[in-house]
Amino acid sequence: MCTCITDFLTYETTKSVVVKSWTIGIINRVVQLLIITYFVGWVFLNEKAYQVRDTAIESSVMTKVKGFGIYNNRVMDVADYVTPTQGASVFCIITKIITTDNQVQGHCPESEKRFTCTQDSNCSKYVNKPGDYGILTGRCVSFNTTMKMCEIKGWCPAEIDTIKTTPMMEVENFTIFIKNSIRFPMFNYTKGNFLPTISSDYIKKCNFDMVNNTYCPIFKVGDVVRYAQQNFTKLADKGGIIGIKIGWLCDLDKSDDCNPSYSFTRLDAMSQKNAVSPGYNFRFAKYYKMENGTDYRTLVKAYAIRFDVLVNGNAGKFNMIPTLINMVAAFTSVGVGTVLCDIILLNFLKGAEQYKAKKFEEVSDSPMDTHSNGLYQSQLSLRHKIKSNDLGSFSIEHYC
Amino acid sequence: MCTCITDFLTYETTKSVVVKSWTIGIINRVVQLLIITYFVGWVFLNEKAYQVRDTAIESSVMTKVKGFGIYNNRVMDVADYVTPTQGASVFCIITKIITTDNQVQGHCPESEKRFTCTQDSNCSKYVNKPGDYGILTGRCVSFNTTMKMCEIKGWCPAEIDTIKTTPMMEVENFTIFIKNSIRFPMFNYTKGNFLPTISSDYIKKCNFDMVNNTYCPIFKVGDVVRYAQQNFTKLADKGGIIGIKIGWLCDLDKSDDCNPSYSFTRLDAMSQKNAVSPGYNFRFAKYYKMENGTDYRTLVKAYAIRFDVLVNGNAGKFNMIPTLINMVAAFTSVGVGTVLCDIILLNFLKGAEQYKAKKFEEVSDSPMDTHSNGLYQSQLSLRHKIKSNDLGSFSIEHYC
Amino acid sequence: MCTCITDFLTYETTKSVVVKSWTIGIINRVVQLLIITYFVGWVFLNEKAYQVRDTAIESSVMTKVKGFGIYNNRVMDVADYVTPTQGASVFCIITKIITTDNQVQGHCPESEKRFTCTQDSNCSKYVNKPGDYGILTGRCVSFNTTMKMCEIKGWCPAEIDTIKTTPMMEVENFTIFIKNSIRFPMFNYTKGNFLPTISSDYIKKCNFDMVNNTYCPIFKVGDVVRYAQQNFTKLADKGGIIGIKIGWLCDLDKSDDCNPSYSFTRLDAMSQKNAVSPGYNFRFAKYYKMENGTDYRTLVKAYAIRFDVLVNGNAGKFNMIPTLINMVAAFTSVGVGTVLCDIILLNFLKGAEQYKAKKFEEVSDSPMDTHSNGLYQSQLSLRHKIKSNDLGSFSIEHYC
Repeated sequence: MCTCITDFLTYETTKSVVVKSWTIGIINRVVQLLIITYFVGWVFLNEKAYQVRDTAIESSVMTKVKGFGIYNNRVMDVADYVTPTQGASVFCIITKIITTDNQVQGHCPESEKRFTCTQDSNCSKYVNKPGDYGILTGRCVSFNTTMKMCEIKGWCPAEIDTIKTTPMMEVENFTIFIKNSIRFPMFNYTKGNFLPTISSDYIKKCNFDMVNNTYCPIFKVGDVVRYAQQNFTKLADKGGIIGIKIGWLCDLDKSDDCNPSYSFTRLDAMSQKNAVSPGYNFRFAKYYKMENGTDYRTLVKAYAIRFDVLVNGNAGKFNMIPTLINMVAAFTSVGVGTVLCDIILLNFLKGAEQYKAKKFEEVSDSPMDTHSNGLYQSQLSLRHKIKSNDLGSFSIEHYC
Repeated sequence: MCTCITDFLTYETTKSVVVKSWTIGIINRVVQLLIITYFVGWVFLNEKAYQVRDTAIESSVMTKVKGFGIYNNRVMDVADYVTPTQGASVFCIITKIITTDNQVQGHCPESEKRFTCTQDSNCSKYVNKPGDYGILTGRCVSFNTTMKMCEIKGWCPAEIDTIKTTPMMEVENFTIFIKNSIRFPMFNYTKGNFLPTISSDYIKKCNFDMVNNTYCPIFKVGDVVRYAQQNFTKLADKGGIIGIKIGWLCDLDKSDDCNPSYSFTRLDAMSQKNAVSPGYNFRFAKYYKMENGTDYRTLVKAYAIRFDVLVNGNAGKFNMIPTLINMVAAFTSVGVGTVLCDIILLNFLKGAEQYKAKKFEEVSDSPMDTHSNGLYQSQLSLRHKIKSNDLGSFSIEHYC
Repeated sequence: MCTCITDFLTYETTKSVVVKSWTIGIINRVVQLLIITYFVGWVFLNEKAYQVRDTAIESSVMTKVKGFGIYNNRVMDVADYVTPTQGASVFCIITKIITTDNQVQGHCPESEKRFTCTQDSNCSKYVNKPGDYGILTGRCVSFNTTMKMCEIKGWCPAEIDTIKTTPMMEVENFTIFIKNSIRFPMFNYTKGNFLPTISSDYIKKCNFDMVNNTYCPIFKVGDVVRYAQQNFTKLADKGGIIGIKIGWLCDLDKSDDCNPSYSFTRLDAMSQKNAVSPGYNFRFAKYYKMENGTDYRTLVKAYAIRFDVLVNGNAGKFNMIPTLINMVAAFTSVGVGTVLCDIILLNFLKGAEQYKAKKFEEVSDSPMDTHSNGLYQSQLSLRHKIKSNDLGSFSIEHYC
C-alpha cells in the first residue's frame, strides 16, 4: 500500500541541458524578451486580456427631429417630413416630393414616353400587362392636345415623375436629437449618451461637433452629412442613407471610462458609383373619401435622407479566470522560443555536434544495439551517431 | 559582474532520448503528418487562419416592389399593398384584405358567435369586459333579422372576419428590387450587390434565378417563395414571413472574390406546424372626417407576406499577426503527438522497460537514496525502479 | 537509402527526471487534479466544449396586441393605439395623446410662453427663424383676450402640449401575443415558442407568469412592466421603452432541451435618471381634405410604451473536431503544472541543490570547458556550477 502511494506521489520533470554560450544565450534571452513584450504590451495592456468582456450590448435609441422647412409655399413640420413617425433608430427626412393629387380608380393615359402611340394597334401588345402606373387596356387615348398614349386602368391620373423640383434646403439646418441608453447585462451596467458631467442647459442648446462638443446629443443634419463626406445638395436631391454610428468601448475597471463616440458614414455608398437607381426614394399615399364614399388619394413620391443610428460596443472588467488563463499562456509561450533556439544551436553554432551529443541520447530496438546499450557506451557514441530529425528541434542536414 | 552576465546568458533546452525504432518512428511521423495536414489543410487553407477577419459588416438595404394587382375590382399599386412604405429591409406585401368601411364610434352588436344571446341576462356577465370588437355593455341587441348578439361600445359596425376571400394572385408576378451596399470598416472596403461586371441594361431587365442570373438584384415574388420551398397559394392565403438572406464571404487577398450569395427561407416555420394563429396578418385603419367633424374610419385586416432582407458576412485579409501566431501554434502542436507516442513506446512496444530506463532518471529525497545517488548507481537501477505515473507519459500499470 | 529511412523513422522524447518526494509529489498531483477538474468541470461540462456551437440564430417575431381602452370618451382599439401596425418585433402602445384638431396652413400666434410679446418689436429679432410650432413672421398678435404672442406661419392653430391629461389606464390589462420562430441554420433546427407540449386551448387562455406559465406566449402589459421593475402609472404617463428578451440556449444532444426563456428590462433606463427629455413620445398627423381641396390635419402628440422584442440564443451539438481539440488542450495543459512545481522543487525543497544537479546538465562553448567535458566531470560538477535562470524553471537567486 505504502509503496503504491509512494510510486504515485512522484514528480516528473524534464532533464535539461544548460548551454553556457554567449551567442545562444543572447538569442535565447532576446527571443524570450520579445515574447514577454508581446504578451505584456499587446495581449495584456492593449487587448486587455485580464478582463472578461461583454459584447452583448443592449441598446435603445430614441430620436427626435426639429426644424421647419418651406416646400411649395407650405410650411412643413416634423409630422410632415419625418417617416416613420415613431422616433426609432431608423427614420427618413423627406427632402423632395412629387405629389399627384386627387387620384381615383379609373382609366387614363400612361405618362411614360415609351407608351406613346398613334392608334390602338400600337398598344394591343400590352393588353393586361403591367405598365408603369397601371394595367394597360390596349387602347390608345389622348394624353394632351398633341400626344396620344396607351390607356391604363388604375389610379388616375398617372404620376408624372419627370418634373424637376428643388429639394427643401432648410433640411440642412434641421437638428436630430438622439437619446441612447445602453446596458451591459453581464455587469448590469447602464449608461446613457447624456453624460452626467453635462448640464441640462448645455444639452438644450448645444450642437455636436468633432472638436469641442463631442458628447452633445444634438446633431445638425448639415454637419452629419458633411462628416459623412457628402455634398448636401446632391444628397437632398437624389436621397441617400447616412449611418450615425455610436460606439461604446468601456473599461469598467476605470470609473468613467465609458463614453459614446460618434461616427458618420454614407451607408449606400454604392449609389454614388452606380447609375442604376441612384439615391433613395419611395412612394406612399394619403387616402381620402368623397362625400359619396368614393376613395381618392394623393400619391407622394418622396426623396429622402434616411438615417440609421447604429449602436455597437463592448465592456471589459477584471476577472480572475481570463487573467489566470492568459498568464499561464504567457508563461508557457516563453518556452516556444526554444524551437527557434534549438534550430540555431544544433545547426549554426560552432560546436553544434557537441551540443547534439549532449542533447540527444540514443536508444535502439535492434538487439545488437540493445546489447551494447550500457550507459557509458551510448553516451560516448552519441557524438557521432545522432542526427535528430524531429521537427521540434529541426536539424538541417541532407539525409539521402 | 562578468560572471553574472555569463550566468544569465545561458540557454536551457530539454535533454532528449532518440528512439531508433521503425515501429515508433513510423507512428511518430504519421502522427506528425496528421497534425501538419490538419494545420495546413484545415486551419490555413480552409479556415484562412493567416487572415485578419472583419465580422462587423455595415450594411444598408433599399427595396422597391413593382407590379399591379386587381382586388375587389380595384387596381392596387405599390402605395396600396406595400407597408411600411419606406422601402427598408423589412416590408410586407398585402395579399388579402378584409375591409370594414365607415366605422364610427357608437353602439352595435358583436359579430363573434360566442356572443349570441336571447336576452340581456345572457350578456350581463360581460358588462364592461372587453369583447372581440369593443367593450360589452351587457345589453342584447338584434344582429340581423334572425339573430341577437350582445351589444358593444366602440367602432361600429364590428368587423366580420369570417368572410372567405381569395388572395390577390398577381402578387406572384410582382418583382422585388433589392439594393444592398456593404462596407467592412476594418479594411474600408465598400461594395454593392450591383456588380461592376453587370451592365445597367441587364439590371433593368433581368430576373434572379439560381443558375444563370445569380447576381441579378430583381426577384420575382413567386421565385422567392418557391426557393423557400413554400406553396404560393397557401402562403398568400394565410400570410407568412420569408427571409431573403444575402451572404458576403469576402477574401480581399484575391481581387473580385467578394460577391453576394442569396438564399431564401421561411422564417416563421412554426406557423406551418401549429394550428394556433397560423400565418401573418395585422389590422390597420384609414381615418376620415365627415363635414361635421365626426371621425370615421375604414378598418383593414390585412393578410400579408412579410419579407425580411437579412445581410451577413465577413471579410478576411492577410495579416502578419494571426499568421505568426498560428504558425507558432502549428509548430508547437506538432509536439503534442509525443503524448500518444510516449504511451505506445512505454507500454506496448517490445523493450518498453528499456525505453523507460532510458527516459526516466530517478532522484529521491530519502537520505539513504541521496547517499548512494551517484550517477552510476541511479542510472543502473533505473531499469527496475521507475514506474512513471505522469499523465503526460502515462504508463498503464496497476499500482495497488 | 535504407540508412536514410532509418534515420528519418526515429522518435524523439524528452528525458525526464522522476523525483520521488512526498512533498513535491503531492503538490504535483494536486496541481494536476486542479487542472483536470477545471477542464472536466468547467470546459467540458459547463462550457460544453465538446459541442460545435451555432450562434447565428435566425428569428422571426410576430406580435399582436389585444384590448380596449377608453380615452376622451372614445373606445380605442388596436388600430388606434398600436403603431407601427404591422405586428413586428418593435411596436408602440400609445398611452396618452394630445390632439390638435383641424390644423390648416396659415398664420397664428405661437403657444410657448417664451414668445410672449407686447408689440412687434419684441418679435422682430425672430423673423424667419424657426419657433416651436412654425416659422416666425416678426409680428405680435393676440393669443387670447389677455395675452399677445409672436405670430408664426405654419400649421395653425399651434399645439398646446402643456395640457395635463391622464394616461389610458386600461393599457395595463392589454395582452401582447408573441409568436417567435427560430432556426439554427448550421443544424437546420427549427423551433417556435409554442411548445409542442402545450395545447391550443391553453395558449388561447393562458397568461405568462414567471412561476407557473413560463412558456405561455401571451403577456399582460402590466405584468411585463412589473417584471421590468417599473411603475406602470409613471411609465404610462411619460412613456418609455421596455425590452422583452427571448433567450434560446439549446443543447441539441438532449432532445427537448431547447426552450425559450423570457426576461424583461427597461431599455431606456437613462430616462429615469435624467431630467432632460424623460420618457418617450412622438408626433404624427392624420391628413384630411375639405370639399374645396384644402388640406387640414389632426396633429397627435403621443406618449407611448415601446416594446422591443429581442431574440438571442445559440445551440450546441456534439462534434468530433472541437472534442478532439479540447481533449488535446486538456492533456497538454496538465503539463503546465510543471512550471509551478519546478519553481518549488528547485528553490524551496530540502535538497534543492541535488535536484538541480540532476535536472540540469551543463555544456559550455569555452574551449577549456569543452576539453574537460567528459560525462563524468560535467555531471559531478553540476551541483556547484548550475544556476538556471530560465523563466520556465525560475530559480530565485541573486546574480550580481
